[in-house]
Amino acid sequence: MRLWFCDGKVYQVWKSLIDALRDDAPVLTVEGGEALKTLPKARWIWKKLYQYQLDRGQAVGLIGGGSLLDVGGFCAATWKRGIPFVSVPTTLISQVDAAIGGKTGLNFRQGKNLIGVYAQPRAIWGWPNFLESLPQVELRSGWIEVFKHALIAGGGLWEGIQQVSVEKPPALALLKEAAGVKVQIVRADPFEEKRLRFVLNLGHTLGHVWESLSRETERPLLHGEAVAIGLAQEVYLSYRLGHLSEAELEKVLSWLSKRQYLRPLPPFTWKDWEKLLFQDKKVRTGRLFMPLLRGIGEALPAEEVGIKALKEAVRWYQGQYGSTT
Amino acid sequence: MRLWFCDGKVYQVWKSLIDALRDDAPVLTVEGGEALKTLPKARWIWKKLYQYQLDRGQAVGLIGGGSLLDVGGFCAATWKRGIPFVSVPTTLISQVDAAIGGKTGLNFRQGKNLIGVYAQPRAIWGWPNFLESLPQVELRSGWIEVFKHALIAGGGLWEGIQQVSVEKPPALALLKEAAGVKVQIVRADPFEEKRLRFVLNLGHTLGHVWESLSRETERPLLHGEAVAIGLAQEVYLSYRLGHLSEAELEKVLSWLSKRQYLRPLPPFTWKDWEKLLFQDKKVRTGRLFMPLLRGIGEALPAEEVGIKALKEAVRWYQGQYGSTT
Repeated sequence: MRLWFCDGKVYQVWKSLIDALRDDAPVLTVEGGEALKTLPKARWIWKKLYQYQLDRGQAVGLIGGGSLLDVGGFCAATWKRGIPFVSVPTTLISQVDAAIGGKTGLNFRQGKNLIGVYAQPRAIWGWPNFLESLPQVELRSGWIEVFKHALIAGGGLWEGIQQVSVEKPPALALLKEAAGVKVQIVRADPFEEKRLRFVLNLGHTLGHVWESLSRETERPLLHGEAVAIGLAQEVYLSYRLGHLSEAELEKVLSWLSKRQYLRPLPPFTWKDWEKLLFQDKKVRTGRLFMPLLRGIGEALPAEEVGIKALKEAVRWYQGQYGSTT
Repeated sequence: MRLWFCDGKVYQVWKSLIDALRDDAPVLTVEGGEALKTLPKARWIWKKLYQYQLDRGQAVGLIGGGSLLDVGGFCAATWKRGIPFVSVPTTLISQVDAAIGGKTGLNFRQGKNLIGVYAQPRAIWGWPNFLESLPQVELRSGWIEVFKHALIAGGGLWEGIQQVSVEKPPALALLKEAAGVKVQIVRADPFEEKRLRFVLNLGHTLGHVWESLSRETERPLLHGEAVAIGLAQEVYLSYRLGHLSEAELEKVLSWLSKRQYLRPLPPFTWKDWEKLLFQDKKVRTGRLFMPLLRGIGEALPAEEVGIKALKEAVRWYQGQYGSTT
């Protein structure tokens, strides 16, 4: 490695470990979080690649959560048309989901990941240790992607999450199994060309909208918190459209509500809501396709859904769990 | 096509043609040229893609020279991780070279094409008509890439350019043959992994340096003008390093000097010169590899060259053709 970018908080806690690993290459610390995924921050990273004269024979190391890996991966993938990078995910959400699959990107205006490319890291180094120092709120957020993978894969993973505490990191075996769900799907459809990979977007069509809408509020939702709401609504929609049984809907909602994920919606207008919805990358020529659930362990990759049905799911959620005004 | 970006000058001249082709999609005009290849301009294009809500099922059309295709292609390739685009090159340099091969990019700080990706357009529409309205200085610049392809391919193309006037567009057959040289090489090595494609960089290692160094001067060099100087120096270097015969060196220099391409160098310091040289994308781990010529029709893809030999070639050029101070 020629140069490292590392989340500042992570470096504070794990300095001795990282210093042992960095092999004399400089470590530049950055503040992690969604605010990192902007063009000005990308420009800062490109500037460093310029100053350190990174070329295609040298790799960049990225140590941090999903945002740092997203923007760092994007900058590496677009520097001199692509230099190698290695990802070291430090959050639960990135270890189980974000670091896997080769999606890189930035947010643009009100839309998430609108600027980006597909680019695979040369390697992903998974160190569960990092989860020990993760704030509880981020652990809770990360568990939602474990939960999503359990909904998609069902079986042992679904069984495995029934008794867990989302205040603690997952056991290693569970962590590996949850990450494995993503690896398997991404391998089968690396560029989202076969619709197979769309199932991973479960909960994210609406989740992204809530995440965006909450951004300017007093309490912005973390990614997993927003996806939890999106999952509740999209699974309800799956039930309403006749794909899912009521009993399975209840199982899903019960897991989420037991763990206090079903919070009131952030304040919004339907006009903004709709605009954000149609900014979604999966929307093709104005029509909306999204994954739905047919059963636990069985997701439908891309069902066409009308705006009316989506609004109804949101209204149902408002009735059940409220909204902030 | 859902949206067009078109060079403003081209649209002025060819409005009726483009309006017939655009199929009701809006045409946004932009000012072409190297100044377009910056992050702020890319941001402007992304903003338009955002405002027009481009999604992956819709294509963007690009009508213009190499700079417009480079930045437009980059923005399309990074929008929602890649939307389709169609390139309509309008300059000689883009028809014969820049539009072919799937390289997109922006300049960053003092370096050319430092930010970019490989992305193939869905189609390239070649209309030789556009060349009729091209300023003479750009025709002259474009001819240099025809010349470069003739050096690489030799044979009929080399014969074909012996009597041409660089004040006029090439005949259609010659244009096709010159473009074909690039198509063939790019097909064999689309991501520059096999070094095969490196031959296309002939004249560009030093050419890029002169292009950058002249940027802030009274008379910035056009791309082809800078490459002409780079070709003279790199072909001289090929001779000095024992790869090329003196007779063939003379043939190359004679073609260029007959057509007044061998102008004095822009003012520079060796320190800046060296810095720009090592910013080159083909430099790997600090060592410099570049294509050289073994004979007309026979290029070596990636020879390691020392900085001393390069400086000597530049000094030889200064002695022959002067430099501005």
